[in-house]
Amino acid sequence: MSTDEDDLQRHGFSEWSSVNADRLPVAIAYPNNTEDVSKIAQVCHKYRMPMVPYSGGSSLEANFSAPHGGLTIDFASMNKILELHESDMDVVVQPSIQWMDLNEKIKDSGLFFPVDPGPSAMIGGMVGTNCSGTNAVRYGTMKDWVINLTVVLADGRIIKTRRRPRKTSAGYNLTGLFVGSEGTLGIVTEATLKLAPIPEQTRVGVVTFPTVRDAASTAMQLIRQGILVQCVEILDEVQMDVINRAGGTGRTWKTLPTLFFKFSGTKAGVADSINLTTKLSKRNNASSFEFARDEREAHDLWSARKQSLWSMLSLREKGSEVWSTDVSVPISRLPDIIEISKKELDNLGLFASILGHIGDGNFHASILYDRSDPKELERVEKVVYDMVDRALEMEGSCTGEHGVGLGKKGSLKKELGPDTIDVMRSIKQSLDPHWLLNPGKIFDYERRA
Amino acid sequence: MSTDEDDLQRHGFSEWSSVNADRLPVAIAYPNNTEDVSKIAQVCHKYRMPMVPYSGGSSLEANFSAPHGGLTIDFASMNKILELHESDMDVVVQPSIQWMDLNEKIKDSGLFFPVDPGPSAMIGGMVGTNCSGTNAVRYGTMKDWVINLTVVLADGRIIKTRRRPRKTSAGYNLTGLFVGSEGTLGIVTEATLKLAPIPEQTRVGVVTFPTVRDAASTAMQLIRQGILVQCVEILDEVQMDVINRAGGTGRTWKTLPTLFFKFSGTKAGVADSINLTTKLSKRNNASSFEFARDEREAHDLWSARKQSLWSMLSLREKGSEVWSTDVSVPISRLPDIIEISKKELDNLGLFASILGHIGDGNFHASILYDRSDPKELERVEKVVYDMVDRALEMEGSCTGEHGVGLGKKGSLKKELGPDTIDVMRSIKQSLDPHWLLNPGKIFDYERRA
Repeated sequence: MSTDEDDLQRHGFSEWSSVNADRLPVAIAYPNNTEDVSKIAQVCHKYRMPMVPYSGGSSLEANFSAPHGGLTIDFASMNKILELHESDMDVVVQPSIQWMDLNEKIKDSGLFFPVDPGPSAMIGGMVGTNCSGTNAVRYGTMKDWVINLTVVLADGRIIKTRRRPRKTSAGYNLTGLFVGSEGTLGIVTEATLKLAPIPEQTRVGVVTFPTVRDAASTAMQLIRQGILVQCVEILDEVQMDVINRAGGTGRTWKTLPTLFFKFSGTKAGVADSINLTTKLSKRNNASSFEFARDEREAHDLWSARKQSLWSMLSLREKGSEVWSTDVSVPISRLPDIIEISKKELDNLGLFASILGHIGDGNFHASILYDRSDPKELERVEKVVYDMVDRALEMEGSCTGEHGVGLGKKGSLKKELGPDTIDVMRSIKQSLDPHWLLNPGKIFDYERRA
Repeated sequence: MSTDEDDLQRHGFSEWSSVNADRLPVAIAYPNNTEDVSKIAQVCHKYRMPMVPYSGGSSLEANFSAPHGGLTIDFASMNKILELHESDMDVVVQPSIQWMDLNEKIKDSGLFFPVDPGPSAMIGGMVGTNCSGTNAVRYGTMKDWVINLTVVLADGRIIKTRRRPRKTSAGYNLTGLFVGSEGTLGIVTEATLKLAPIPEQTRVGVVTFPTVRDAASTAMQLIRQGILVQCVEILDEVQMDVINRAGGTGRTWKTLPTLFFKFSGTKAGVADSINLTTKLSKRNNASSFEFARDEREAHDLWSARKQSLWSMLSLREKGSEVWSTDVSVPISRLPDIIEISKKELDNLGLFASILGHIGDGNFHASILYDRSDPKELERVEKVVYDMVDRALEMEGSCTGEHGVGLGKKGSLKKELGPDTIDVMRSIKQSLDPHWLLNPGKIFDYERRA
């Protein structure tokens, strides 16, 4: 247990979050195993103390903040691989293992865990937000890769949502319910994750286009035609400039709207996909098509994409902050929403960029701004929430992979309406009647009639 | 509304179900739209009358039976495609459209819905049981293909679980909770389904092996190596004999343990997969490797596989019934469980076969037996429940795709334990406090402390 001021600050505030709570947790607990967490929950339950789970701390909507104070449970000491079942292609892990660390440790098995959010993300938080990343277009999102969860309930009881089958129709899909519930229904202490075979070959391609619309349209057509890609990412010219300025790829890239592709599979399969993608890009006015020359360059380039948020952070001037947000829409609407949003971001006159997982209708906007300037804050908020409203009008969602946290509770209400939220609230109430688990996230407490 | 005796019988009893309830519904309602269903639910809620949703009627664990009487809601008049969004690759449908009919109607779009259970299954029931089929190894199960659901709650309120984004992290995954809940949490009246591009080419291959273990091992290695297949199905020699006797494929197949493969994708991708699969099969003692000679033959062959349950039914002698059951296990355990189960089935001295979706650890056993002979029934039950127990010992599940219904409530208890079932029961209680929605399925009512 810790009540150190720096520790409280580090767990209750985040400089990369779009919002922050106005208070901190009162203490931090560092459990060693599921039984510890169960005992903590029993005590918190007895004294009606809020419990906030914490792992990587990289989420962007204050998902791990402590607006009602209480105890933050940091899984720092629970960061191990417990079992690796190579021939079943699954692995049992604790919440605070980083996904990149997991992949490094299991690489000799020929298997990998394909969900790839920001590099510092850990499995616990990844389960919480139903995160995804660049691989989602080929491999899906977090909910598709969790076989079972060990969960400590609000009163300290320990349950396991499933045994270890990859496929089942036995009873309610509790695994899928806890994934994405942001720690508001139970505290995840172990997860069994599916693994995929590492592809025989991976190649990275970079294609520039005259406009973001051309780039977005190419991506849409590619998905529509069923061309196999592992990733297709869109980066606007601002984001390409960020990559150039951050350095680290050993190259200067054209500052044009760009698609990054990752092709993977058997050698013949990769060659086929590259061939089809090249043709399609040319039909959509692609101005250049290049490949990473070797694995090192491919790795650097992809890292540059993955590090984009941190690269932007490093370009901040004193006093400025970053607002990073994401929305998703039915895929045909992506060129429209990206074009309009890009125009509005440009009109801000700030350093603002668009990038995203265009293969599944999800994209991000990042804006550097001065939060202490009320007028600038208001203008930025307007652009962000207009973008969210636009996504909803297009039948999309207020967040594709970041989760609701504190920052998007109002948007969620608009998105789903009171009766659907009420169903969520009923489920919350049934599993956590005193609203102790990560309170104030996703939706607010409301006494039910 | 109907109270016709034949109608009640047809909705409350199934000759292909492993079990049946000992009573029938008291009436059948035939709503025309979501509002009708809402009104029905309001009346049933007021008078505390059970409601049992019904669409294709092809489920195998009495999932649509009426053990507590009440009203069966048959969606026969709600079988339409409401909207097809070709460029978003999704479709909005009513519950009683057959998946094959859906695919026939949308084929000009170049898209298809890839979840393929028994041919007579309809979308409503497919959502209810989180069904799958031969395509699951490539495309996943029902829960992976539902974007949103319109659901009538126990008290008649209508909710929509989502708007229409393919990817979202906004609030609880209600879509994934209703999928697989067998109509016990709400009544699905509309579903938006993801669609996939129809592959450029599809080829069907048939490989025979000296033993079921050789066949099962080949399938495991194929998945482990990440060779792209759309389907890999195992059929034992009994099942191959059933296909020969049922006719319709224009060929007599060797009555040996067999893998059926479906390869699909671009032409180059298919050629590559066939090449790799051929090599792998040879290393596992494959005795023959043949391809369907043309599309017609491929279609007939796959239909023969899909019709296998009905083919078995047609071979019944007077008085005999079929017990069809499914389990799933971590994939490396499949050769073991299939080998033991096959031996036990053979020892019954009855007409019994094994076939299944071996790519995702799920297989079926079908047994023809005389239910009126208490000793034979007892022997068959023992073999079935021993197989389920064996799957659970291997950390598997009592059902991979049929659901729990009436038939596997006891097995589900063993599989998940009382605390996990209690979480499911809390959710049930919170959404359906009077237990009116499909009561008696998945788990039994229990007053909570």
